[in-house]
Amino acid sequence: MIDSDISQIAASLAENGRDFYRRGWVLGTSGNFSAVVSRDPIRLAITSSSIDKGTLAAEHILQVDGEGRVREGLGRPSAETLLHLAVTRLRGAGAVLHTHSVWSNILSDAHHRQGGFKIEGYEMLKGLEGVTTHEHSEWLPIIENSQDMHSLAVKVEETLIRHPDAHGFLLRRHGLYTWGKNIAEAKRHVEIFEFLLEVLGRRL
Amino acid sequence: MIDSDISQIAASLAENGRDFYRRGWVLGTSGNFSAVVSRDPIRLAITSSSIDKGTLAAEHILQVDGEGRVREGLGRPSAETLLHLAVTRLRGAGAVLHTHSVWSNILSDAHHRQGGFKIEGYEMLKGLEGVTTHEHSEWLPIIENSQDMHSLAVKVEETLIRHPDAHGFLLRRHGLYTWGKNIAEAKRHVEIFEFLLEVLGRRL
Amino acid sequence: MIDSDISQIAASLAENGRDFYRRGWVLGTSGNFSAVVSRDPIRLAITSSSIDKGTLAAEHILQVDGEGRVREGLGRPSAETLLHLAVTRLRGAGAVLHTHSVWSNILSDAHHRQGGFKIEGYEMLKGLEGVTTHEHSEWLPIIENSQDMHSLAVKVEETLIRHPDAHGFLLRRHGLYTWGKNIAEAKRHVEIFEFLLEVLGRRL
Amino acid sequence: MIDSDISQIAASLAENGRDFYRRGWVLGTSGNFSAVVSRDPIRLAITSSSIDKGTLAAEHILQVDGEGRVREGLGRPSAETLLHLAVTRLRGAGAVLHTHSVWSNILSDAHHRQGGFKIEGYEMLKGLEGVTTHEHSEWLPIIENSQDMHSLAVKVEETLIRHPDAHGFLLRRHGLYTWGKNIAEAKRHVEIFEFLLEVLGRRL
Repeated sequence: MIDSDISQIAASLAENGRDFYRRGWVLGTSGNFSAVVSRDPIRLAITSSSIDKGTLAAEHILQVDGEGRVREGLGRPSAETLLHLAVTRLRGAGAVLHTHSVWSNILSDAHHRQGGFKIEGYEMLKGLEGVTTHEHSEWLPIIENSQDMHSLAVKVEETLIRHPDAHGFLLRRHGLYTWGKNIAEAKRHVEIFEFLLEVLGRRL
Repeated sequence: MIDSDISQIAASLAENGRDFYRRGWVLGTSGNFSAVVSRDPIRLAITSSSIDKGTLAAEHILQVDGEGRVREGLGRPSAETLLHLAVTRLRGAGAVLHTHSVWSNILSDAHHRQGGFKIEGYEMLKGLEGVTTHEHSEWLPIIENSQDMHSLAVKVEETLIRHPDAHGFLLRRHGLYTWGKNIAEAKRHVEIFEFLLEVLGRRL
Repeated sequence: MIDSDISQIAASLAENGRDFYRRGWVLGTSGNFSAVVSRDPIRLAITSSSIDKGTLAAEHILQVDGEGRVREGLGRPSAETLLHLAVTRLRGAGAVLHTHSVWSNILSDAHHRQGGFKIEGYEMLKGLEGVTTHEHSEWLPIIENSQDMHSLAVKVEETLIRHPDAHGFLLRRHGLYTWGKNIAEAKRHVEIFEFLLEVLGRRL
Repeated sequence: MIDSDISQIAASLAENGRDFYRRGWVLGTSGNFSAVVSRDPIRLAITSSSIDKGTLAAEHILQVDGEGRVREGLGRPSAETLLHLAVTRLRGAGAVLHTHSVWSNILSDAHHRQGGFKIEGYEMLKGLEGVTTHEHSEWLPIIENSQDMHSLAVKVEETLIRHPDAHGFLLRRHGLYTWGKNIAEAKRHVEIFEFLLEVLGRRL
């Protein structure tokens, strides 16, 4: 089911954020998390900018509209709000989670010339929605990092369209984006990808 | 002693599951755990399918019979129930624990052509039941992964028969199975193997 | 804002110390932390020497003057007090944090002949104060370790002057110094550097 | 000061044991810890055999005499009691702690032909009692593992005599022994060695 109650959504995003911080996936003020509050018109609950995720609380979650303007809450929304909106729109995602791990930095750098890399043959792939066998081949696209969020959002959209089956993508030397129909599914996808990145990264 | 009280068994399986999750051994919804409730007829307490092990609770533990049919509790039993039953039958195990760690993925892949690998000379081997010296040589068999649980169960049985002294086995790019006369012993075997896999994996 | 209340400063330094200990960055009795209490005359709150950081408490925080003499509290101030004073003076820092991590030991050793190394192209660099793009190039100077604190303080001063944009430096086979306008910013800088050191260290 | 109250000693050994377990240094039932209760006649508080260190409690601490016979408490004392007694006698130690870490297994194996290895140039060495400069050179002897505790105790004694300045030693593919005048100092030595072993192990 889609997460629907705003205070519950905010509490759940905050809890996952603190948990990811403890695992070293969103150190500094890195990482941002969102979930759809309503679809029509689109309203996204999203972490406000520059927050230490180790102390992330529900009050740090804003609501933005389809252009990324704040509609509720205080503070600036994450600089990467446009990327969250792009994923929400093109994948029909109910939640989008973005982490900065050591292994995603290493692998996005090692494979960026090929524009991504395949992950195949791992039982853990079955944790990705719709995947029913380890024989699945997951292409994890890598997008060159940029501070121009408008052009980066366009590249994200192109990537999502070119790879309709991808469950996530990496920004080079930056981190992982993945999503799900709700926060629990998106969180599971983060764990699956971070696990597989570590397996591959340790064998580079 | 064999674990005997069902509510105690369920609580213990759940506690170990949450602990393994914190150590990164059963991320996503991976891993499954079982313990024998009765031998004649055989009744197995086993984790139900697709549960986040970070929040595993006693209510997620079902009871199945010797064919893997649910006899008590709600939900689907783990897809790998037949493997648990095979181990229980052939080893007389009181508990079977299955984890998906980074190092078991790496080592099962590195050595799968030889069908397994030897672990010898480590003091930590003495943590395996019946092993009294570091001079012990433990063969850890590797079985090719499969989604066909009936044929995989047959391969597990063949492997257990061919290697009567093995305390565990790996499924390739999937994870570790180990067992013990009760949950505490099986948990100790998980720790021993995961430790030794890390030692060997870091020197690959 | 600058941290201003002494009991709050001491509690915050102690809390960060215990947290860094749990992450393995200040094991043994390593590491030391300071924050400016007043500027004119200069008063520094600083950890006393030889304390286990796993149990660091506010009572282990002393106050020293601009020459490193104790003005309040019991115990000896950290042997590296002169380095903290040098950073405070030359950078106008409100807090200075010094950690001893595995990766800072490894990288300070691997690159010491070049006197430092560049970190560039990582999104995580934006966690350093004033850095607004991953295209930033951060030079992390390495200073040869010494037990002569007076001569080491002089080398630290020279390094800070020669590299006016550096957000931190390494002492060879010793650890990281970084700082910020207050404790929260300095703590963020520790996380950023430790993250980036791990990324680079794992690819050595 | 020497630890003197038996209930306090037992509580402290148990607390350190649970802490080491959480860090992965005494998995399975590995590791054992002791502290001197009295010197004349010698009485050692020591962990009983085969205990899961994750749940180590004061009741698992026995008292043995100079021949390793139980004088107080229930259960068998650690099989390695003779090694603890040897260290206590030859070094005048107040506490002896023995861990089984991944890195001590790796390094004791990599360097065993040379009978040990030097650790030098690290600031962290100053955490070892009596060491006042990073320029210190610490020789960490490696002793071939054995299940014959009498002959192993003799080798430990020979090693301690041959290397009067050593603060610890490794048993090959087994683990670290270190000690201190009390439990706190011995625990600090464990942290120092485990840190340095990781630094060296990651660069093998």
